[in-house]
Amino acid sequence: MGVFKNMGIKFANRMENIKSSAIRELLKLTEQPDIISFAGGLPAPELFPIKELEKVCSRVLNEEGQAALQYSSTDGFLPLRIQIAERMKKLGVECTAQNILITSGSQQGLEFSGRIFINEGDVVICESPSYLGALNAFKAYLPKFVEIPMDEEGMIVDELEKALEQYPNAKFIYTIPDFQNPTGRTMNLERRKRLMDLAIKYDMPVLEDNPYGELRFEGEHLPTLKSFDTKGLVIHLGTFSKIFCPGLRLGWVIAEPEILQKYIIVKQGADLQCSSIAQREIYRFMEMYDIDEHIANLINVYRRRRDLMIETMKAEFPSNITFTHPEGGLFAWATLPEGVDAADVLKKALEEKVAFVPGEPFYPNGGNANHCRLNYSNMPEEKIVEGIKRLGKVLKSL
Amino acid sequence: MGVFKNMGIKFANRMENIKSSAIRELLKLTEQPDIISFAGGLPAPELFPIKELEKVCSRVLNEEGQAALQYSSTDGFLPLRIQIAERMKKLGVECTAQNILITSGSQQGLEFSGRIFINEGDVVICESPSYLGALNAFKAYLPKFVEIPMDEEGMIVDELEKALEQYPNAKFIYTIPDFQNPTGRTMNLERRKRLMDLAIKYDMPVLEDNPYGELRFEGEHLPTLKSFDTKGLVIHLGTFSKIFCPGLRLGWVIAEPEILQKYIIVKQGADLQCSSIAQREIYRFMEMYDIDEHIANLINVYRRRRDLMIETMKAEFPSNITFTHPEGGLFAWATLPEGVDAADVLKKALEEKVAFVPGEPFYPNGGNANHCRLNYSNMPEEKIVEGIKRLGKVLKSL
Repeated sequence: MGVFKNMGIKFANRMENIKSSAIRELLKLTEQPDIISFAGGLPAPELFPIKELEKVCSRVLNEEGQAALQYSSTDGFLPLRIQIAERMKKLGVECTAQNILITSGSQQGLEFSGRIFINEGDVVICESPSYLGALNAFKAYLPKFVEIPMDEEGMIVDELEKALEQYPNAKFIYTIPDFQNPTGRTMNLERRKRLMDLAIKYDMPVLEDNPYGELRFEGEHLPTLKSFDTKGLVIHLGTFSKIFCPGLRLGWVIAEPEILQKYIIVKQGADLQCSSIAQREIYRFMEMYDIDEHIANLINVYRRRRDLMIETMKAEFPSNITFTHPEGGLFAWATLPEGVDAADVLKKALEEKVAFVPGEPFYPNGGNANHCRLNYSNMPEEKIVEGIKRLGKVLKSL
Repeated sequence: MGVFKNMGIKFANRMENIKSSAIRELLKLTEQPDIISFAGGLPAPELFPIKELEKVCSRVLNEEGQAALQYSSTDGFLPLRIQIAERMKKLGVECTAQNILITSGSQQGLEFSGRIFINEGDVVICESPSYLGALNAFKAYLPKFVEIPMDEEGMIVDELEKALEQYPNAKFIYTIPDFQNPTGRTMNLERRKRLMDLAIKYDMPVLEDNPYGELRFEGEHLPTLKSFDTKGLVIHLGTFSKIFCPGLRLGWVIAEPEILQKYIIVKQGADLQCSSIAQREIYRFMEMYDIDEHIANLINVYRRRRDLMIETMKAEFPSNITFTHPEGGLFAWATLPEGVDAADVLKKALEEKVAFVPGEPFYPNGGNANHCRLNYSNMPEEKIVEGIKRLGKVLKSL
């Protein structure tokens, strides 16, 4: 193509708020094969059920190939939606297929939530810190973020109550109650109940993002916020990315039909529907194999990796650095001394061929640069030990 | 779930402009198996290369299963983007992988275009009529549509010139030059050149939607608008939905890097990336098999179906009904006498178990209810004849 000469082109104003981040550029470096990366949120690819999926693919193409390759309905493949509803019931969420829309990962559910709820200047309430991908999706719609501080038991609900008093017209509360991204923290049972009491009091929609809830290594499963939802306020997002594989791009939204209808209409305009064949493949996989057995295997591997990461951090990190002890999920969160910028630490770490994500972008209003998000699901055990040792060396040198 | 009690929930203002259409409800009836449907834009499922795809799937899972099921880059699988760039060169579009983003069908490219360009009240210029799915995607961003009338040679470029004089700050021209949806018309060569001269004069972005261009039954291939683009103004949308299959949900955007970067950032927030495995499957398919041979087969089948539809319309429709003679693509367009509402005709047609799409929703500013879009790609030959006979009976009864 020719030289770029189209200086006259005017984009929409909203594009000024959607920028590629400096950190994303830095993280491109982590894709080099010699880097030990704790940066991504990637599952362990060696655990993907590849052989099983090969059988599933053949069967789907042989038995229902025409339907699998044709257009299909916007809300999603009905047998898959029924199957998801049945799985959700086991997790304490009463729903039927009519409450479920299939999305391109839970990221699409997040983006749609921004589009459906946020007018410019509207308040969105979220944990501080919160998931970067959600914050960026919401930012396109120009909200004001009100951050609720967390402790080891998750979002501090006393602070949420104050925020709701101050912003009763906030559009929604965005929360990841289980093994939160980025901190790995889990909201305790009492706070879940209180959060829902407050949501009901204020008629406040709750966007419950739950990609990791089934990956619990220890302790008791806690009920979802949706299971306390007597007023149809909770929009629950799920995904196959962490319990099966992300490459098929399938997640789901659960909501009251009147709310779900908005998501379905937006889905129609966004991309018509999710992959027909991918939906049938996941459905068949869950029919032919035991996904819970697969998840149990993931949990065993990830638990060992978490243990190794935590043990090695204890041994190798300076004592003025604290870190969370996640009971599940993919991430731990380290806090450096005040005044230390984790982005600077990352630059030094990359020289030692080890990577993580600096914490600042997880705070929608900025600040809090002294944190590191550390993923333990994607690296094999020996690399976790070696990588944390290298990171310890960098941290000691500060 | 409980009764819907969340009357306090407030959606974003933009949702007021995104509504499920009455016609969509009507068209749900066309999904009954005993209906002969000319309504959808569906390819012929009996021509999907199912056996070949089964071999492709096995190979991808065996040889590159971990990468195929893992997260991958937002812009898309590089070997596929290189392959698309090479195919596009054969169609006269000079581009490289750096100009290409993989999207979830071209619908996603359309939706992103609305998001990237349209502020509330901005002018979008389009053919009259134009593709419903694009219009709906744009409508979410509240533009003003300026419709340019068409004749048998496509958009009337004299009228476009007047519109550009009146609206020099319009955001883009949206056009489907080849075998347009809904009319089946093709823009002639002279108009393509003049349209691009005007676009260059006004620094006006052109959104060239090209899902059907390779499905030409007769006559000479006409160069794309992109091939006349000396100023980087054309954003060209392509898709595998009509030349391969829609179920994998893969299309592409071609644009100058400075423009494409906006699409990539929006894609990241929208759903992170397209299916890793679907991209590798289409790539491998094109390596292992001859997609042009497959397309030649589609063309032969669709040409016969078009011929049958046109011949039967000539024989069975009242003489006051005119219709287009598409040289390719999936659709013909019938014009009923002024004052006849095709939505009423559809209701009667459904009683005779035959369906089409009434024309009005293809006009963004409404009106023009006396048209029918007729798809001929999806029904076998005997059903085309029978369906058009039934429709002729309904039309004669008016």
